Amino acid sequence: MASTTNNTPLLLDLTIDNITENVVRINSQSSNARLNYLMERLVTHVHDFARETRLSTHEWMATIEFLTKTGQMCTDVRQEFILLSDILGLSMLVDSIDHPKPPNCTEGSVLGPFHTGDAPHLPIGSSMSTDAAGEPMLALCTVSDSSGRPISGVKVDIWETDSSGHYDVQYATRDSPSERCVMTSDVDGGFWFKAIKPVSYPIPDDGPVGKLLGLLNRHCWRPAHMHFMFEKQGLDPLITSKTTLFIRGDKYETSDVVFGVKSSLIIDLGKVDEETAAKYGVPVGALLLRHSFVLASTEETEQLRDKNAMEAMERLGLKSKLIDHLPVPDLD
Amino acid sequence: MASTTNNTPLLLDLTIDNITENVVRINSQSSNARLNYLMERLVTHVHDFARETRLSTHEWMATIEFLTKTGQMCTDVRQEFILLSDILGLSMLVDSIDHPKPPNCTEGSVLGPFHTGDAPHLPIGSSMSTDAAGEPMLALCTVSDSSGRPISGVKVDIWETDSSGHYDVQYATRDSPSERCVMTSDVDGGFWFKAIKPVSYPIPDDGPVGKLLGLLNRHCWRPAHMHFMFEKQGLDPLITSKTTLFIRGDKYETSDVVFGVKSSLIIDLGKVDEETAAKYGVPVGALLLRHSFVLASTEETEQLRDKNAMEAMERLGLKSKLIDHLPVPDLD
Repeated sequence: MASTTNNTPLLLDLTIDNITENVVRINSQSSNARLNYLMERLVTHVHDFARETRLSTHEWMATIEFLTKTGQMCTDVRQEFILLSDILGLSMLVDSIDHPKPPNCTEGSVLGPFHTGDAPHLPIGSSMSTDAAGEPMLALCTVSDSSGRPISGVKVDIWETDSSGHYDVQYATRDSPSERCVMTSDVDGGFWFKAIKPVSYPIPDDGPVGKLLGLLNRHCWRPAHMHFMFEKQGLDPLITSKTTLFIRGDKYETSDVVFGVKSSLIIDLGKVDEETAAKYGVPVGALLLRHSFVLASTEETEQLRDKNAMEAMERLGLKSKLIDHLPVPDLD
Repeated sequence: MASTTNNTPLLLDLTIDNITENVVRINSQSSNARLNYLMERLVTHVHDFARETRLSTHEWMATIEFLTKTGQMCTDVRQEFILLSDILGLSMLVDSIDHPKPPNCTEGSVLGPFHTGDAPHLPIGSSMSTDAAGEPMLALCTVSDSSGRPISGVKVDIWETDSSGHYDVQYATRDSPSERCVMTSDVDGGFWFKAIKPVSYPIPDDGPVGKLLGLLNRHCWRPAHMHFMFEKQGLDPLITSKTTLFIRGDKYETSDVVFGVKSSLIIDLGKVDEETAAKYGVPVGALLLRHSFVLASTEETEQLRDKNAMEAMERLGLKSKLIDHLPVPDLD
């Protein structure tokens, strides 16, 4: 290895075999141990990828052009790099790593790029849909903690597509939010609302990521689902959680293009009976979604994540420590 | 592993531990074996990176934003993703893999993002500089093949910065090329021209890549150098080659931000003596660059690349074959 005694790499005559250790070394000069570790792993994997594939200049240039187009496809309402991460399974993997759930809690799924900050805060019982073409659906939900205690005052963000499979932000003419709302759980941890039956939809496929899916002979569909994000701030235990409910029987149930489906998140829709119809003011026979969300606290999630992280580092044979719940090699 | 008998992955209940094999499988449906292999390695390395670092959602989002800004920094004359590849050592690594040189041939170096297609074709002996502030330099060069035979009719592309360290394309006001030219070697394989002494210069650091270098406590300088690209088409042996000559003694000689310096490419500048001054019409004492380039043929490079590729795949324990000189797993 080309290096001087003071540990400064001598960046000269680098070869296929010694370039990685020297690039890693020049990238290890930050005082941020976490950044150094991320760069060490990044450079090692990127270089190994090139060495193991014998990446050609032509392929490298095609990749540069692909990444450039991906960046240039992004706008305020279109995040093509998140789509890329989604279709490579990276988004789902990072979510699994960062938000592990205790066994009795509702599992998580990917946030997706279509959450917005401008959904209207609606009273319990409101309709969040303005789409007359959608199939009406009543949703009756509760939130509880991992011990089964109802949690009141949880801010619940809910969003879905319209009946044509498009989120409101995908319309250039959007002037206000639709098919989304924020609701707050009541004293019994309950919240209910009127919406429409979720439908399966293609992720935007008119950009570089869509082209890549085409090259890979993959479809671009997500099975019908509805997003939920939960937040309760300023109290102990703090809660921030997100998940997705999938409607059983969807054609794409076992081939979600972004890999987000979990069996425990697939639900059966029922029909509204007479008593329920009278109580909630909806027609008899309308679709009914019932679900009880069990939310892990931030503390429970963090403890599990820390434990998983230390075990993973041990499996790698790395002596490590956690800084802000993130592992770095322990060089002391 | 969740899968059905017909080898179609069942993309359900994916976990940190089984997501990779299933994402790889859904990405293996192309009829292009090379694409399948690239995707398999890409997904494996990207997922391993996330697992080994326990990448957080916050870090993932920062990466998404970094890549987006990098793409949006790109214009016709600014390629921020190439800069990113450069400062990670990937460009140099890919060049080493794709353009290996037989031992007696001139080594290669990175092309860089500043080559253009519009350099004027100048007669041998011309000046390629319009920069009166530069230190005049006479360059006397020859090209030969790996057996030492001079090669005539080689198209030589030459480019460097001006005396302030900027390529012409970095000026918004550029209306015609400067500090670059194309020349054709004469019957003796010779070509000579007047230029200016190369100077060290910073790569553009006003974008995301510059910010990253700052975070890593790295400087953004390249040592003084001059680019050469050689091409001889339509004849056997075909030649396409590129390299860079570095001027000895530069402050950044052993810390090139893009890792491109090789000892064999560092040259000493001499001074023009009376005889040379009279012969070439330049002042006595002017700077003199002399260099003999020994160019590998495309065939020689390909043979070496194929051999290296098969050896690398063997070291990985992979039975493989070459398609268009690029390795793919041999599944037959």
